[in-house]
Amino acid sequence: MEDIFNLRYALDTFYFLVMGAFVMWMAAGFAMLEAGLVRAKNTTEILTKNIALYAVACIMYMLVGYNVMYPGEAVSSFWPGISFLLGADNDPAEVVAVAAEGWYDGSYYSGRSDFFFQVVFVATAMSIVSGAIAERMKLFPFLAFAVVMTGFIYPLQGFWKWGGGFLDEAGFLDFAGSGVVHLTGAAAALAGVMLLGARKGKYGENGEIHPIPGANMPLATLGTFILWLGWFGFNGGSELIVSNVGEANAVAAVFVNTNAAAAGGVVAALLTARLTFGKADLTMVLNGAIAGLVGITAEPLTPSPELATLIGAVAGILVVFAILVLDKMKLDDPVGAISAHGVCGIWGLIAVVLSNPDATLSAQLLGAGVIFAFVFVASFVVWAIIKATVGIRVSEEEEYAGVDVSECGLEAYPEFTSAGKA
Amino acid sequence: MEDIFNLRYALDTFYFLVMGAFVMWMAAGFAMLEAGLVRAKNTTEILTKNIALYAVACIMYMLVGYNVMYPGEAVSSFWPGISFLLGADNDPAEVVAVAAEGWYDGSYYSGRSDFFFQVVFVATAMSIVSGAIAERMKLFPFLAFAVVMTGFIYPLQGFWKWGGGFLDEAGFLDFAGSGVVHLTGAAAALAGVMLLGARKGKYGENGEIHPIPGANMPLATLGTFILWLGWFGFNGGSELIVSNVGEANAVAAVFVNTNAAAAGGVVAALLTARLTFGKADLTMVLNGAIAGLVGITAEPLTPSPELATLIGAVAGILVVFAILVLDKMKLDDPVGAISAHGVCGIWGLIAVVLSNPDATLSAQLLGAGVIFAFVFVASFVVWAIIKATVGIRVSEEEEYAGVDVSECGLEAYPEFTSAGKA
Amino acid sequence: MEDIFNLRYALDTFYFLVMGAFVMWMAAGFAMLEAGLVRAKNTTEILTKNIALYAVACIMYMLVGYNVMYPGEAVSSFWPGISFLLGADNDPAEVVAVAAEGWYDGSYYSGRSDFFFQVVFVATAMSIVSGAIAERMKLFPFLAFAVVMTGFIYPLQGFWKWGGGFLDEAGFLDFAGSGVVHLTGAAAALAGVMLLGARKGKYGENGEIHPIPGANMPLATLGTFILWLGWFGFNGGSELIVSNVGEANAVAAVFVNTNAAAAGGVVAALLTARLTFGKADLTMVLNGAIAGLVGITAEPLTPSPELATLIGAVAGILVVFAILVLDKMKLDDPVGAISAHGVCGIWGLIAVVLSNPDATLSAQLLGAGVIFAFVFVASFVVWAIIKATVGIRVSEEEEYAGVDVSECGLEAYPEFTSAGKA
Repeated sequence: MEDIFNLRYALDTFYFLVMGAFVMWMAAGFAMLEAGLVRAKNTTEILTKNIALYAVACIMYMLVGYNVMYPGEAVSSFWPGISFLLGADNDPAEVVAVAAEGWYDGSYYSGRSDFFFQVVFVATAMSIVSGAIAERMKLFPFLAFAVVMTGFIYPLQGFWKWGGGFLDEAGFLDFAGSGVVHLTGAAAALAGVMLLGARKGKYGENGEIHPIPGANMPLATLGTFILWLGWFGFNGGSELIVSNVGEANAVAAVFVNTNAAAAGGVVAALLTARLTFGKADLTMVLNGAIAGLVGITAEPLTPSPELATLIGAVAGILVVFAILVLDKMKLDDPVGAISAHGVCGIWGLIAVVLSNPDATLSAQLLGAGVIFAFVFVASFVVWAIIKATVGIRVSEEEEYAGVDVSECGLEAYPEFTSAGKA
Repeated sequence: MEDIFNLRYALDTFYFLVMGAFVMWMAAGFAMLEAGLVRAKNTTEILTKNIALYAVACIMYMLVGYNVMYPGEAVSSFWPGISFLLGADNDPAEVVAVAAEGWYDGSYYSGRSDFFFQVVFVATAMSIVSGAIAERMKLFPFLAFAVVMTGFIYPLQGFWKWGGGFLDEAGFLDFAGSGVVHLTGAAAALAGVMLLGARKGKYGENGEIHPIPGANMPLATLGTFILWLGWFGFNGGSELIVSNVGEANAVAAVFVNTNAAAAGGVVAALLTARLTFGKADLTMVLNGAIAGLVGITAEPLTPSPELATLIGAVAGILVVFAILVLDKMKLDDPVGAISAHGVCGIWGLIAVVLSNPDATLSAQLLGAGVIFAFVFVASFVVWAIIKATVGIRVSEEEEYAGVDVSECGLEAYPEFTSAGKA
Repeated sequence: MEDIFNLRYALDTFYFLVMGAFVMWMAAGFAMLEAGLVRAKNTTEILTKNIALYAVACIMYMLVGYNVMYPGEAVSSFWPGISFLLGADNDPAEVVAVAAEGWYDGSYYSGRSDFFFQVVFVATAMSIVSGAIAERMKLFPFLAFAVVMTGFIYPLQGFWKWGGGFLDEAGFLDFAGSGVVHLTGAAAALAGVMLLGARKGKYGENGEIHPIPGANMPLATLGTFILWLGWFGFNGGSELIVSNVGEANAVAAVFVNTNAAAAGGVVAALLTARLTFGKADLTMVLNGAIAGLVGITAEPLTPSPELATLIGAVAGILVVFAILVLDKMKLDDPVGAISAHGVCGIWGLIAVVLSNPDATLSAQLLGAGVIFAFVFVASFVVWAIIKATVGIRVSEEEEYAGVDVSECGLEAYPEFTSAGKA
């Protein structure tokens, strides 16, 4: 019994760590995607933001966020209380004693591996924000927001669902975070975009919308493939346990459905773009993949692979139109993050009812509403404070010249483009 | 016993999923490799093809291909019969009952994980095609071919070997698919290239061959490294089981040999290129790595690491000359896919006899011949039908201007090159 | 008991292989990092060096290096003796007999998986060298050095610590190789840089230092993310075993601390660069991540996550100033490899005493001193012999035109830059 217990603990921990490493890799995916979709002159800065926000997320979540999201004992189901620093990992002697007493329920793994898996999720949520505010926001004010977002805003709403708070009690279901992670990132991004305003030249005086093409399509595609790969960890690891027949089957189903939804998103976005614009717009196809992945994230376990493909396909159609609508509303999101993660995040939460009999539409809408409202308002307040104090937007000259030189003192492609400076 | 069984099932399933995720990553590898080896003006389109073909492969294999390749009961050893949609995964209760009855043979894992592993293989075969027909084929006709290839052609020949059909019965050996995957992809590509014709300007009136350099060498190198990494899953996962001492040793041997063959391919291609051209041609070195990997794929288990290095080295030499010969024959393959996957695929099938006493040269040649002939003919017919109806080649003006603008309405590097338009 | 043993062996082997695959991926990371930090005209050559050195490392370590580093029976604790070719893997029957006799201590896994894990480490050490000597060294002389380094120099000093030689006996601690791998790579690089001289135009007549910006920042950032991901395998796999509660907790702690140190390095380097130069210099941020990773590598297990963050932060500060100091000394290291791997490697060795009660400062300094002195001197001799015979530096004309054309006959970005030639 003790031997078996040791092995299960080890296998589940190892599974958690590998899945977490895949999710960490998504940070690279966001960095490449965003770097590919901005102009050359703003590339170094977006790269700097992406690597720095990941680091900030890791530190803040270690210092306070993890404890907020998963408090030992919560003060209430709305407010977890606050405490600092990580506790120790499980004591092997105690853990093994559990097995000896025979009441092991198969849900043990290293606490540190849980932290690792959770911390890379926070970074994902924050990565969503960096794309939407690209090409015009200052670096350090952005990182100041990241401190608050990853230390407090994300963990608090995360507590409401995954920490056992009131959304969990209300029957709201969100397997891997269409709401807790993706909608959260998109809501924070939307607040930032509203306070920041559009890039110069994006919207004309007479309502025209000027496309601003990204500088590097292979990079954007690479980023999407990285995200797709990382998502196997994101969703697959959210089963939390793999060590018996039922759990292993569940993880396998999640892998298959995650992949199927992304495939559905790609095909649907490709056809939608072709029918709408007459061209196979690659950026829409990439957003279709991400949309499909976001859409299946709230429930990647219970659908059949065929239904998962359809859920992804709907997301792939939605994202194309969402991007068009946001542009009509002059909400300038250079990479389509709000559409892919926000609109399709809500779709994902709703789609849970299609296959999971435990889900209710009302609980799903409650969850979506609460997460969006809280994160949007909290983020808006934080962005507004930063704006009112140090400012969030670069000067017009800096924006014209590109933020790479003003913020980082370094061009991304110094030999490829003289346009890089103008 | 039940505990042990649960753990073995879980470990083997988890191993399969991780290996499958590595293979999925190869889709990114092909995308980057091909994007790096084409000209800037055709980059967006090849990226679109790569992500879309992966999605098409996933959907078609789910809908029909998997059932064709692995039918419950085959009609005959030539024709598996046809059925649609995936079945349910293993029932945990039944699976555990197997263990209780004590006849467990250590070959159980989630059926869904098997599907996942198989589906990423189909995508690999199809990815081989996209490179060879680059820079002049229309997007949607290409995807129409992908539908037939991934739903029917690949699964049917796959059934003949891995599904237990007549090639398997004939003693043909192909551990991870030098033939079933790589030669298949190359044969389909060759048929396409023959019907498509060479790129404008590639071959002069007097037999000159004009090199058309790829636009982005770092991308091509990245793609090769991705493929190398993914191949650990491709070959390592093809052992199917890892959960005891013998199987674990086998998987480890496969990892070591796969790596060794790639290393052998690199060094051999580097030296061959240096001696032949006087320069260390990077594209040949990259193809040497891939050639070595393809060459070891039919038998990565039984060779010693030293022999595996030699098998890879022979492939690395072969690929250089195969590329030269194909160019002499005016078969225009911009990325060298037919040489690396086809010629070295055949070499890999033959090389099985060097270390596996169960292999016979005649069975290996039979397998190579059957796969090549069937896939080439079937693909030729499909390509020809598409060509006769909607056409497969872009217009001369579109080819001159680059297919990115005409097909995708989007340049890959809009700020880096005005040459991108001409 | 036999069943349990089989499973532990399988799990530990699989863990080793997955961690090894992550480390192999670091080869791609170094390639991308270095390709991003050199000028466009020297990019193809650095890519060629990176893929070729990996292949050379795999072959040499298989032929002789592994046996040098881990001899069956060493001649003495200074000299292991020499023997060639790999032995066979564990015999399953014998291994299982061990379990049946009941004296299993939980430290069995496939010998081949151990070789795989070790061989990718050698490649890492060698990859460090290629960056430092970039943009002016000839390709084949570099590979000649790689032959000696990976077959003899690295394995001999590796034997002294990990093979059970005199440094191990002296109580020197180096968990995953801040010294054995990173300082070793940096010492070899330093010797090469000293004999090679600086790039033309780097240092002015009057002591000015001219920055030579890298051509492709997204590539450099991608490389850093790849290294970060790969480092989970590098450090996480160095625990060697995962299959019980204590070991699983240890691996999880290593993952968390590795991540935390990199995060600390990023934030510290970002702030240091900002305060020192007034700009958020991305190249310094990237080096900060690597510095943090190198710094934690000697002891990623015993620190708390908070202490790990601090160890990484100190490394992130150190690397910025080390780069400045090396430039003052006219030691031209285009990518900062000597600073990140050498200076921070020594820091990592010292930092072991902060959390591991078994470490002594004297033993750590002894290890650092011995490794640096031996590798530096041995490398210097080898470089000097190569320089005296075939030469190590390209001609002034070749350097001016870029080594891509002279060495590889191939530009990296033929359509993006005419500056590529000048």
